[in-house]
Amino acid sequence: MIVAFQGERGAYSEDAAYAFFGTSAATEPCRHLSNVFKKVKRGEAEFGIVPIENSTEGSVNETYDLFLIHNLKVCGEKILKINHCLMANPNIEFTLIKTIYSHPQALAQCRRFLERFDFEPIPVYDTAGSAKILKEKQLKNAGAIGSERAAELNEMRVLSSGISDNPSNFTRFLVLSKTDSRATGRDKTSIIFAVRHVPGALYRVLGILANKHINITKLESRPTKQTPWEYNFYIDFEGHRTVKKCREALEELRSKVLSMRILGSYPIDT
Amino acid sequence: MIVAFQGERGAYSEDAAYAFFGTSAATEPCRHLSNVFKKVKRGEAEFGIVPIENSTEGSVNETYDLFLIHNLKVCGEKILKINHCLMANPNIEFTLIKTIYSHPQALAQCRRFLERFDFEPIPVYDTAGSAKILKEKQLKNAGAIGSERAAELNEMRVLSSGISDNPSNFTRFLVLSKTDSRATGRDKTSIIFAVRHVPGALYRVLGILANKHINITKLESRPTKQTPWEYNFYIDFEGHRTVKKCREALEELRSKVLSMRILGSYPIDT
Repeated sequence: MIVAFQGERGAYSEDAAYAFFGTSAATEPCRHLSNVFKKVKRGEAEFGIVPIENSTEGSVNETYDLFLIHNLKVCGEKILKINHCLMANPNIEFTLIKTIYSHPQALAQCRRFLERFDFEPIPVYDTAGSAKILKEKQLKNAGAIGSERAAELNEMRVLSSGISDNPSNFTRFLVLSKTDSRATGRDKTSIIFAVRHVPGALYRVLGILANKHINITKLESRPTKQTPWEYNFYIDFEGHRTVKKCREALEELRSKVLSMRILGSYPIDT
Repeated sequence: MIVAFQGERGAYSEDAAYAFFGTSAATEPCRHLSNVFKKVKRGEAEFGIVPIENSTEGSVNETYDLFLIHNLKVCGEKILKINHCLMANPNIEFTLIKTIYSHPQALAQCRRFLERFDFEPIPVYDTAGSAKILKEKQLKNAGAIGSERAAELNEMRVLSSGISDNPSNFTRFLVLSKTDSRATGRDKTSIIFAVRHVPGALYRVLGILANKHINITKLESRPTKQTPWEYNFYIDFEGHRTVKKCREALEELRSKVLSMRILGSYPIDT
């Protein structure tokens, strides 16, 4: 069973894969987020795991947009506590460091830490990848931000731990596959839909869910990329799509929107 | 009259400042977006101009978050057509280029172009800044993405024009100041609010506007950064805050939400 993730070995996405599937999962690194979707689509990986939202920095827009392109299902979610560490090559002291390499989201989550020490942030494609760059180039005036595991795997020295601006830093990951999950009694459903650009259109759609006391846990909008200032909406709500009130709400929704896709139902992670 | 903007001279934000205030405006570059807010707050600049949303890539999260920290008003908006160019140092041919420097949003807006030619994207703080880097370091195997004006100012050669994945590429900018604008009859109002985390809370808030036939033009949510998975909502709606039905809606809203701030009313740009 292969689980594709974006980043190098030691990435938080790989941590999420181990947390969800167990440490015996065969994880497979991908350079780009889009490759994770493609691998699952082509059947080269049974599952993919992708970051969708961070509790401080918000939605990962690229992931939302990829769901629109690739016709895949969500079969699970995993919430991971993020503990960012500052690392450097062995024998490098804190005072030598001038620039910090990491993924843009990680740099954003440690913005105050970077400003306090006047470090110059250098965005790269992955947290674990930033440790790899430090090692390969044997950089002396640079640090990287990533997990303790990324430091270990790249034989880095951890200079500082828990450096997120907000100590309560979590990332929510979604598990991709070709099918979603069966009802467990504590489930969530994710959908994408588009509404006509008229006053109150979104309000009426939310009303369908509110009238059935279905709790929305997340609402996100993304540009359609076709007509400027027109949006697709993404909603996560509590309940499995096969449960009567959810099934009825989804049927009513489908009749009120321009287009709708059910990404899937899956057990809630707490 | 000083107008602060983020980026180097030649940045799209500076174009937006000239389009809004006229070409005689005294524009002042800032390294970080937060500096634009700080300069206006301290009175070092009368106005600031900041990107809030791109028609392809969506909201500029950092701008939304800065509105929460800094108690400033919105007094105007400007929608700018973005025409990305690929540029390089003079005498550099297209075929020599391996890496492309630009702002992460610009790189994202030209993702398909980068993939087609297998260019490696290198994110930097600003589009015009990327041209400056190419010039200062006299890079030979690198290109930059930015405006034609950024190319001119940095004596770059334009190798390709109109390289956005979506030819219909617009960015909406907001104009910051200490006060908002008077009613013109064709206005918009921007607000931020927080609701209790209960089913239907957002729906009831949207209902206040829908019942008065007030058209919402944008809805955005951002993490509160205090409690994980709790959000502040940002809404733009048509109408000036001093107009009767808007004033009544805002009063009702204030009584139904945990907290609310009116960012201001300003003329709609079309």
